[in-house]
Amino acid sequence: MNKAELIESVKRFFAEDIGQGDITSQAIFTPDQIGHAKFIAKDSFIVCGMENIALPVFQTKNPAISCVKSSEDGAKANIGDTLLSLTGPVLDLLAAERVALNLVQRLCGIATLTSQFVEKVKDLPVRIVDTRKTTPGLRMLEKYAVRVGGGHNHRFNLADAVLIKDNHIAACGSTTSAVNQVRQTIPHTLKVEVEAETFEQVKECLACNVEVIMLDNMDTQKMRDAVNIAKGKALLEASGGVTLENVREIAETGVDIISIGALTHSAIACDISMKLEVD
Amino acid sequence: MNKAELIESVKRFFAEDIGQGDITSQAIFTPDQIGHAKFIAKDSFIVCGMENIALPVFQTKNPAISCVKSSEDGAKANIGDTLLSLTGPVLDLLAAERVALNLVQRLCGIATLTSQFVEKVKDLPVRIVDTRKTTPGLRMLEKYAVRVGGGHNHRFNLADAVLIKDNHIAACGSTTSAVNQVRQTIPHTLKVEVEAETFEQVKECLACNVEVIMLDNMDTQKMRDAVNIAKGKALLEASGGVTLENVREIAETGVDIISIGALTHSAIACDISMKLEVD
Amino acid sequence: MNKAELIESVKRFFAEDIGQGDITSQAIFTPDQIGHAKFIAKDSFIVCGMENIALPVFQTKNPAISCVKSSEDGAKANIGDTLLSLTGPVLDLLAAERVALNLVQRLCGIATLTSQFVEKVKDLPVRIVDTRKTTPGLRMLEKYAVRVGGGHNHRFNLADAVLIKDNHIAACGSTTSAVNQVRQTIPHTLKVEVEAETFEQVKECLACNVEVIMLDNMDTQKMRDAVNIAKGKALLEASGGVTLENVREIAETGVDIISIGALTHSAIACDISMKLEVD
Amino acid sequence: MNKAELIESVKRFFAEDIGQGDITSQAIFTPDQIGHAKFIAKDSFIVCGMENIALPVFQTKNPAISCVKSSEDGAKANIGDTLLSLTGPVLDLLAAERVALNLVQRLCGIATLTSQFVEKVKDLPVRIVDTRKTTPGLRMLEKYAVRVGGGHNHRFNLADAVLIKDNHIAACGSTTSAVNQVRQTIPHTLKVEVEAETFEQVKECLACNVEVIMLDNMDTQKMRDAVNIAKGKALLEASGGVTLENVREIAETGVDIISIGALTHSAIACDISMKLEVD
Amino acid sequence: MNKAELIESVKRFFAEDIGQGDITSQAIFTPDQIGHAKFIAKDSFIVCGMENIALPVFQTKNPAISCVKSSEDGAKANIGDTLLSLTGPVLDLLAAERVALNLVQRLCGIATLTSQFVEKVKDLPVRIVDTRKTTPGLRMLEKYAVRVGGGHNHRFNLADAVLIKDNHIAACGSTTSAVNQVRQTIPHTLKVEVEAETFEQVKECLACNVEVIMLDNMDTQKMRDAVNIAKGKALLEASGGVTLENVREIAETGVDIISIGALTHSAIACDISMKLEVD
Amino acid sequence: MNKAELIESVKRFFAEDIGQGDITSQAIFTPDQIGHAKFIAKDSFIVCGMENIALPVFQTKNPAISCVKSSEDGAKANIGDTLLSLTGPVLDLLAAERVALNLVQRLCGIATLTSQFVEKVKDLPVRIVDTRKTTPGLRMLEKYAVRVGGGHNHRFNLADAVLIKDNHIAACGSTTSAVNQVRQTIPHTLKVEVEAETFEQVKECLACNVEVIMLDNMDTQKMRDAVNIAKGKALLEASGGVTLENVREIAETGVDIISIGALTHSAIACDISMKLEVD
Repeated sequence: MNKAELIESVKRFFAEDIGQGDITSQAIFTPDQIGHAKFIAKDSFIVCGMENIALPVFQTKNPAISCVKSSEDGAKANIGDTLLSLTGPVLDLLAAERVALNLVQRLCGIATLTSQFVEKVKDLPVRIVDTRKTTPGLRMLEKYAVRVGGGHNHRFNLADAVLIKDNHIAACGSTTSAVNQVRQTIPHTLKVEVEAETFEQVKECLACNVEVIMLDNMDTQKMRDAVNIAKGKALLEASGGVTLENVREIAETGVDIISIGALTHSAIACDISMKLEVD
Repeated sequence: MNKAELIESVKRFFAEDIGQGDITSQAIFTPDQIGHAKFIAKDSFIVCGMENIALPVFQTKNPAISCVKSSEDGAKANIGDTLLSLTGPVLDLLAAERVALNLVQRLCGIATLTSQFVEKVKDLPVRIVDTRKTTPGLRMLEKYAVRVGGGHNHRFNLADAVLIKDNHIAACGSTTSAVNQVRQTIPHTLKVEVEAETFEQVKECLACNVEVIMLDNMDTQKMRDAVNIAKGKALLEASGGVTLENVREIAETGVDIISIGALTHSAIACDISMKLEVD
Repeated sequence: MNKAELIESVKRFFAEDIGQGDITSQAIFTPDQIGHAKFIAKDSFIVCGMENIALPVFQTKNPAISCVKSSEDGAKANIGDTLLSLTGPVLDLLAAERVALNLVQRLCGIATLTSQFVEKVKDLPVRIVDTRKTTPGLRMLEKYAVRVGGGHNHRFNLADAVLIKDNHIAACGSTTSAVNQVRQTIPHTLKVEVEAETFEQVKECLACNVEVIMLDNMDTQKMRDAVNIAKGKALLEASGGVTLENVREIAETGVDIISIGALTHSAIACDISMKLEVD
Repeated sequence: MNKAELIESVKRFFAEDIGQGDITSQAIFTPDQIGHAKFIAKDSFIVCGMENIALPVFQTKNPAISCVKSSEDGAKANIGDTLLSLTGPVLDLLAAERVALNLVQRLCGIATLTSQFVEKVKDLPVRIVDTRKTTPGLRMLEKYAVRVGGGHNHRFNLADAVLIKDNHIAACGSTTSAVNQVRQTIPHTLKVEVEAETFEQVKECLACNVEVIMLDNMDTQKMRDAVNIAKGKALLEASGGVTLENVREIAETGVDIISIGALTHSAIACDISMKLEVD
Repeated sequence: MNKAELIESVKRFFAEDIGQGDITSQAIFTPDQIGHAKFIAKDSFIVCGMENIALPVFQTKNPAISCVKSSEDGAKANIGDTLLSLTGPVLDLLAAERVALNLVQRLCGIATLTSQFVEKVKDLPVRIVDTRKTTPGLRMLEKYAVRVGGGHNHRFNLADAVLIKDNHIAACGSTTSAVNQVRQTIPHTLKVEVEAETFEQVKECLACNVEVIMLDNMDTQKMRDAVNIAKGKALLEASGGVTLENVREIAETGVDIISIGALTHSAIACDISMKLEVD
Repeated sequence: MNKAELIESVKRFFAEDIGQGDITSQAIFTPDQIGHAKFIAKDSFIVCGMENIALPVFQTKNPAISCVKSSEDGAKANIGDTLLSLTGPVLDLLAAERVALNLVQRLCGIATLTSQFVEKVKDLPVRIVDTRKTTPGLRMLEKYAVRVGGGHNHRFNLADAVLIKDNHIAACGSTTSAVNQVRQTIPHTLKVEVEAETFEQVKECLACNVEVIMLDNMDTQKMRDAVNIAKGKALLEASGGVTLENVREIAETGVDIISIGALTHSAIACDISMKLEVD
């Protein structure tokens, strides 16, 4: 993760959540009162972001906030577990609480959902990967949570990978001519990935040496057909409609990669609360 | 909504999602090719943000993109409905697609979930309100979606309302002294809201003329007791553990407000896709 | 005060005042020369902002500048008093001098003027409050200076309080319908304040349970009439044409709040100079 | 003036004054309601900034706001005069009102005070100039107001002119050595100005061909002595303690320039109000 | 190119070059004087950036500046050719002149140098590519100029391609283990490129199916050896010490790609001047 | 130099060069691995920017990076010399390497070229100065490099000096009227510089007491004529077509200043590499 970028984001999140200041707490606490805060799990889930996201959030508010103890990313938390223990000025702990919780609750949710998918296929040679269907402004963090959950990342943005879709193919007349046209300009460091909806398109992709073929909303029988002819010649990525129920069946077709938008757009926030004691 | 703030956010979202440019599309389309894009509902839900969020996203990319037609906020969409029709340069439609979809899919989800809560209690004199448990960076948009769904907003940030919680009370020794201390400094334009967990605390709040009492994680019997003594003297806000299953029972206690974090932290993205035709 | 926001502002103020650098001083001093600077009062006034505004200004230039001693906010300064003593690199002390002085001279002026108003009514149960007539870009600091002078703050911006004025009432047809319309959408945490120019309007405000009534440019007889019927039912805020000469007479009418634009738009800078000794 | 910089500042001023939005007006007006706003003088003063400051403020809020008529900078306004007439969406006129007024009220004040000084010496060959004692964040605007009032500008910041002061001289041992040291590094496009407190220092300045000599807090007899020996050899700038009462006496000594901090730090806001009619 | 990013950069360049304003021109021209500006070639070179860089620079200053005519990117310019004709306010043409010229003179230089390399090998199946040795802040523009000159781009930044260098290999113990370790985490859309200094390393790269092998500072004999065993199995990129004198010899070894830092770090600015006529 | 401005620029340069992170190195090194980096000269040149530019670049990435040793600005480096030794986390050393090298290679190039010009005229009373033909975004750094090379700076931007050129003169009708017009508004701290192409213009400049006369593209005979009449009355600046070959001849005409655009627009990057050892 890019920590400088995280801190810039956190400053904006504080502006949004704190505004001119926590007028309630400032009426009650003085800047020199010290407190001890704990993040407590209210549910079972995979931990994500205590030390390298929640802690920097608090320290962006006040670098004097120190971390007493924190759970490791990827660990399993159970109800009642203390995930993060902090010491610092009460006013700063309270001011940063909501931004920190809002972030890590979401990220634990993504890591947990990802780990459930990964668990289903853990004995198979397949990668679970994310998509660009992330929360605007939080992509770096959400893709990190996918990795914490055992998943891998697909492209970060439109500039760092090539993905030729139906509109591109239609505009060029054929998959082959789209691939040729794209190869003329893209850096030689990038593979070409092409969306295929039919077996014919898979064959055309292979014919022009496409490095990755996205099997778009195919049923598992079609996927198996694609694997039969493409395995070892191109990477095959299954995409569309993947659920915890069907992910294993899809993986068993032999595809190399399964991409799942739900990892980031449909994860539910985990329940974490902050307990505070004032000296 | 604050449009200037929306546009600043969208610029950051583009930097995140587009990076140096859509290298695939730029290899295939020229800047003068015009296309027609439609947002299509793939599910049933409450529409949110077509004209005043998705459209500005596209127009931030290129002000020349024009809106042919858009669904109204709060309308019910059915599978297959066209929610938004746009005309403009293909390269810009494709570049802005993902940010626009990621935003409105989430906002439609929030509006839809809110409307389900509102529907349950529509014949009762109670407000469904949100919390600060929003996505960092998207609070303005998410609180807007709550309103589209028929809900109301709680405070926007820590500066624009007073909410005295357990830590504040403990630090002052009693609810009464916390209320008195806060009243000395806050602007006279703000009400005082206090968290109460017991019937005794509700009585103490009334004794010091608190304007809003948050009934924190009370069961409905306790809520009814609170309503009995407080109705008309202070606003009563039920908070904690509200679900679609129990929201009506809570409303029937006679509380004035029900605040629900799930409106924003647990809404699932609605399914919308963009169809593109190139001239 | 929000220190992060202060520091962002100070960076802009330095860009404005220092530009590419203090070319005179850089030709004469080396970065390792240490100096001792003192802010000296050249007049009598109420101190504001030595430790939490001037000091952060200097430390934004160079965190190595240390504070030897500083006067407390709200203290009375006399001619010749040392208000702030600093030690640090001469080049940084000189570079930050003008921004720091320009800020605190103005803020001391506001605190001093406020304290003069407050002094006039100190034995009466009334608040002296500010308005939004602050210097663009300095509202947070100027409202702080009002508090240092013993005053209170009115709303910070258009979003954190409701103030229904003549244009709003005219558009709705009546005070009552304006109030009803506003109450449908605003958060339940906010009071409603309404501008009243006549006794009839005060009565209408009471009839619809407005929480705060602004008595706009009323003479003191009218204010007394309003107090007679409204005291205890709504807060009464006197506004318009308040001076050091008439503030006591206004307060004696029994109003709860007196708002004064002059606190911030007509305070004169106090005279403070910086004396520097180089090691 | 640098319009791009003005607009960036105005965006920040709106963030400060409007926050998430004008919740009162948004509850009452719709975005398509059109209004007509007029800035009305409530006092007599020199006009500053109607067309090139207030208007861009409104147009930064909404470019669709149009200017019907505006007073010229430098014109004399009398009570009741309409200074600026605007047409546009009511919500945007109301949202931008306070920032626009706060700015031009201050700027008219500066232009008016400057013009009073200029008027006193208008038949003498002397310039009235400002200082760096401006409001942090508003220097460009305030220096513009000085010019509108008939004054001239001293240096904009520490980088665009040389001013050797007592600390610099002390550090170098003598005026002569300070001047020599500075001349080694500064661009050849800049004059050297030196602060002199005594007649001896004026002579030393002349001896080393200083282009501008600041007569710092000298009485008028000393100024005349300086003029006697320096006239035509260096520009003489009187500085310190200049008032409307003594400015003519100072000018009559024959100095070339009189610099006055009060132009910007002690000008009082002029009284202007906005009248609004809704279609 | 990302135009939004270009405009943000140009605003910073104007702040740097214009500061508070062009005080010379503002003393002489009024804002309504119109002029006609022409960029004239004072040398022969490849044109780059007239319409999509210089023009947006001027239009960032004032959108009312219009382009009468401009040369196409990649065209050959001869001494005396008019490259760009603009009409607009004289003050804005003069204010934007230097930033626009400083940019396009450099970019024409890069395009011209690139085209000289490309010309040398135009009949061979090899790409001339750039490196990350670009001017900080101008990478997007400089990489565009390389494309205009007929070259291709290597990776844009450290995140969008994998390049395993000597330090990475040393840390892992071997090329093979470095490649394996990297493949575990990188997105499946990226190729792996590895630096090889010896023939043994080239063989090891082939053994682990590296997609691109950088032949680092090899002599042409070694390159030919590498081509013999790797051609068709991996892309071969020659790197280090490439000049106009030796580029053809290198290309004739059969490598696929030649990367050249000099394209961007050693191109000399082309000579272009602006001629202005005032109406 | 303005360090705060340097650091803001470096953050942008990192965003450009690092993007989401160095995916290669992050797959191989852990954040706690420490390394030792050395900048090694691969050529002979004048050192510029090791301690006050390259070091802050690295410390902007991670303040924990410490400097073991660095060469002084202005020193002569020979092939193989170690210019800068750093210790810190390997990941941060690698991430900041390219930005730091790209900057100092260019700056050493400028300092070296400047020193070659300065050396040619070192026994003559003449200044070598730069122009505004710098790299957009790097002016502060490049003008610093000119000073390190023994040169001086001309104006920083259009606001801090007056330079009356042919277009200004033409618009006013004559040099004299242009000078008079400009003098009415500019601050009294600035000299007036005027471009002269003929001997007549030089005489006219002298007649109106212009402080600096730019001899624009004159041959050395004309320069000598100008020196004959102007020496001691105005500073004479030779400009246009200055090379290492003719700079001495120009200096020998007796002009005071020689300005050279090539110092910044045509300096070639010096060759420096970073060697890294991992603990």
